[in-house]
Amino acid sequence: MYSADMFESAELGHKLDHATYARHVKTVRPDLLDAQYDLLANKSFPVIVLINGVDGAGKGETVNLLNEWLDPRHVRSVAFGTPTEQGLERAPMWRFWRALPAKGKIGILFGNWYTDPINGRVEHRLSRTELPGAIERLRRFERLLTDDGALLVKLWFHLSKKAMKKRLEELESNKLTRWRVTKADWQNCSKYDQYAKVSERVLRETSTGDAPWVVIDGSDPNYRAITAAKTLLGAIQGRLAEAKANGVEAKRAARRQRSGSSEAATSNMPVFETVDTSRILRDLPFEERLSKGKYETKIVRAQGTLAKLTRTDKMAAHSVVVVFEGNDAAGKGGAIRRVTQALDARLYDVIPIAAPTEEERAQPYLWRFWQHVPRRGRFTVFDRSWYGRVLVERVEGFATMAAWTRAYAEINDFEEQLTEAGTIIVKVWLAVTKEEQLRRFKEREHTKFKQYKITPDDWRNRKKWDEYILAGSDMIDRTSTSFAPWHVIEANDKHLARVRVIEAITARMEAAFKK
Amino acid sequence: MYSADMFESAELGHKLDHATYARHVKTVRPDLLDAQYDLLANKSFPVIVLINGVDGAGKGETVNLLNEWLDPRHVRSVAFGTPTEQGLERAPMWRFWRALPAKGKIGILFGNWYTDPINGRVEHRLSRTELPGAIERLRRFERLLTDDGALLVKLWFHLSKKAMKKRLEELESNKLTRWRVTKADWQNCSKYDQYAKVSERVLRETSTGDAPWVVIDGSDPNYRAITAAKTLLGAIQGRLAEAKANGVEAKRAARRQRSGSSEAATSNMPVFETVDTSRILRDLPFEERLSKGKYETKIVRAQGTLAKLTRTDKMAAHSVVVVFEGNDAAGKGGAIRRVTQALDARLYDVIPIAAPTEEERAQPYLWRFWQHVPRRGRFTVFDRSWYGRVLVERVEGFATMAAWTRAYAEINDFEEQLTEAGTIIVKVWLAVTKEEQLRRFKEREHTKFKQYKITPDDWRNRKKWDEYILAGSDMIDRTSTSFAPWHVIEANDKHLARVRVIEAITARMEAAFKK
Repeated sequence: MYSADMFESAELGHKLDHATYARHVKTVRPDLLDAQYDLLANKSFPVIVLINGVDGAGKGETVNLLNEWLDPRHVRSVAFGTPTEQGLERAPMWRFWRALPAKGKIGILFGNWYTDPINGRVEHRLSRTELPGAIERLRRFERLLTDDGALLVKLWFHLSKKAMKKRLEELESNKLTRWRVTKADWQNCSKYDQYAKVSERVLRETSTGDAPWVVIDGSDPNYRAITAAKTLLGAIQGRLAEAKANGVEAKRAARRQRSGSSEAATSNMPVFETVDTSRILRDLPFEERLSKGKYETKIVRAQGTLAKLTRTDKMAAHSVVVVFEGNDAAGKGGAIRRVTQALDARLYDVIPIAAPTEEERAQPYLWRFWQHVPRRGRFTVFDRSWYGRVLVERVEGFATMAAWTRAYAEINDFEEQLTEAGTIIVKVWLAVTKEEQLRRFKEREHTKFKQYKITPDDWRNRKKWDEYILAGSDMIDRTSTSFAPWHVIEANDKHLARVRVIEAITARMEAAFKK
Repeated sequence: MYSADMFESAELGHKLDHATYARHVKTVRPDLLDAQYDLLANKSFPVIVLINGVDGAGKGETVNLLNEWLDPRHVRSVAFGTPTEQGLERAPMWRFWRALPAKGKIGILFGNWYTDPINGRVEHRLSRTELPGAIERLRRFERLLTDDGALLVKLWFHLSKKAMKKRLEELESNKLTRWRVTKADWQNCSKYDQYAKVSERVLRETSTGDAPWVVIDGSDPNYRAITAAKTLLGAIQGRLAEAKANGVEAKRAARRQRSGSSEAATSNMPVFETVDTSRILRDLPFEERLSKGKYETKIVRAQGTLAKLTRTDKMAAHSVVVVFEGNDAAGKGGAIRRVTQALDARLYDVIPIAAPTEEERAQPYLWRFWQHVPRRGRFTVFDRSWYGRVLVERVEGFATMAAWTRAYAEINDFEEQLTEAGTIIVKVWLAVTKEEQLRRFKEREHTKFKQYKITPDDWRNRKKWDEYILAGSDMIDRTSTSFAPWHVIEANDKHLARVRVIEAITARMEAAFKK
């Protein structure tokens, strides 16, 4: 049922003679460079160029050409082969996240997130019923990128079956170019029809308004070069013009917000107000207590269980990610130390999350967390996390409403990918009452070595107590999934909380190990 | 012949009762935090804490304690186990370089560069005659760190044989703490005497004036905690006081340099002037030419050989690093593209080296190059490199004379380590005459898409032509080693240069593959 329409126009045998080519180069090449410098000065979005298509259609040559025509100091070309050991130890998207260009830069990705689904289907590693799910993932991932402002330029280099064969034969017949043809090239050639069928479907279903595919006839090097360069140039110029127009609009909006007009004030209101979710965090048995004697037995027992679990063989196929969120002064630091005490120091990392650096701000907000995703066998504790997007960034207005509302789905996707790669995710919210927080703030101010723990920010946040509770409750409501549920733990009694945290971790590990 | 003197005083059974401990904590803990904040504000050096010693002597507990007493947001604790696959694919020091703290920060390294030499000797992976070489390497590495300003605090936690056994037995007898004792602990215990002998020697020979070992009796938790904390505190405070004193001196020196006094002017003069090495770069057959016809055959043939070499099985045990240096406008970019044309795009990376970022400036200058060291099977091209230290940084006075003169040895050590891990290093200097450079600069100014290649910096550098030639010649003289020689290639004729570059690479690869 899939017609090959999408590729047909790329089999018309487009050609450019040398004189025409030279004339085009004269304008395209300097314009491309100008566009690159404007992009660099503008710094408001990254350009992600995907290079895909038929073997022998000039993919590698195009990468070389773009690197020659652009200022290569601001281009990052990354080529992905079959995943290495390192790649296989984490969720498949990990290596692509690491290669994303920062705002203002151009990234050329050669052998990218399309390679594995297409090859997988042709080689039957992916069944017919699994393909739609894989395609949907790619769409969601690219949606995340474009929602964050990225310009995606997706180039597909095409050759007809006949042209592909001819090209390989030509290269092979010349002693000097024979080395360019590998066994894999001929194997792919023999499966041309299957590739065409699968590719055509994937392309059609991932050609979205924000990230369309451009299919380029690869048979003539001149035509191919000019078409690729012009496509990229047009995309960058178009977006820069848009960004300039939006920039004026954004400045106006910021002015309105500063002057406190009602329009700006409402823009950070939650959109889903049908249920009051905030009871999740208010109606907790805060009065429960654990005596010191009982605590000392229980904590050591819980730590023992945790230690044993991390030493079983099952651990080799899994990694553990523990996320700590909660009210300020709820005892996250103390709880984390009770967890790590039970672990071999060579096994774990604790990642404290503060405000993002300049480098991190130039990327989608999930980018910095992907950097810390543990490989199999390892245990990573996040002291605050990617949930900052829907907590502090929402409440303080650092993220637009559009950004934080779409974050719930992006986070769920992220956690689902980790889970499928064997990661056990344990998410803990430590809750204290407003009165208990006040008591702890005051205590911190009076203990010299605890003073660094209390800052003007803490007092400011406290004034927004209700907003933080609302944000926290919404978050728990919208991101408690079957694969990564939230554990809300009342923490007015630190001892009780510490025991419960470790018990939550061990329960999740035991459940995963049983599967 | 090695007496156990070094450990004897750590077997006296030091103890602190709880009241004394509490009194100490009251002052040490806030002081440590103050010192950490001063360090952070000062930002002039990193603190590297090494945690080593006998199992059961409280290493892990000390790491936890320091993380509790310090502000953990500015501490990075890294624990190293046996190298992972990823670690084994590169030179052994690679993973330690990646873990170094930036200036102003504290890094706690647990299981570090001492672990493998000591364990290796005890387990006979390292022979008696190899040990001195391994020790010398550690000294040289630490010397690099301290020369760069790092404060190294090396803590060795000791237990007598009897105390170690008693500690393991105690832990095992309690159902709740039994999990803390592993089989490896008992194995290490049975080899206590060998460990003690090897450790004692390594410690004595690596206890230098700039980076001494502090041996701490690990039998009493209170004593151990206070001693470790006070050692760290004293070291940081001492160095901060020094830095303050030096800061005043440095400012005075900078003032002198700006006002152009003779004292400053001489400080960048080379110290080794007995031989005029600059002939290396002046007396080259610049007039040689290669016709276009011959070039086209030769370049394709050279590329074919290179392509084949990278596809042989031998490549799996090696990686290739190609370094490009040379005069401005000598044609590095064009030569690099002719190299990469012959490579599978999934195989190589091109790393352009510009001025270091702020993050990179907060580390020893070799740090950023270690980040890019390729794993086995891969090919990395550096467009300019670590030689910037002895070229532009020397000529422009960005590095002190002390810094760039010691860089020659540091670079040789670095390249030797890579070579021993299987890396084939090919270093190319592309040389053009002063007249040819002028011709190319002018051409660039008149070609629109080449204008970005010519900046005021290029004209400024050209005025210092002789200084750059002297720096380049010294560099070639002092860093042409048997394992990583320089290839000086005359490049007035671009075609000839490109062919020679590829031939240099293939010759080095063939030689390495034959071994």
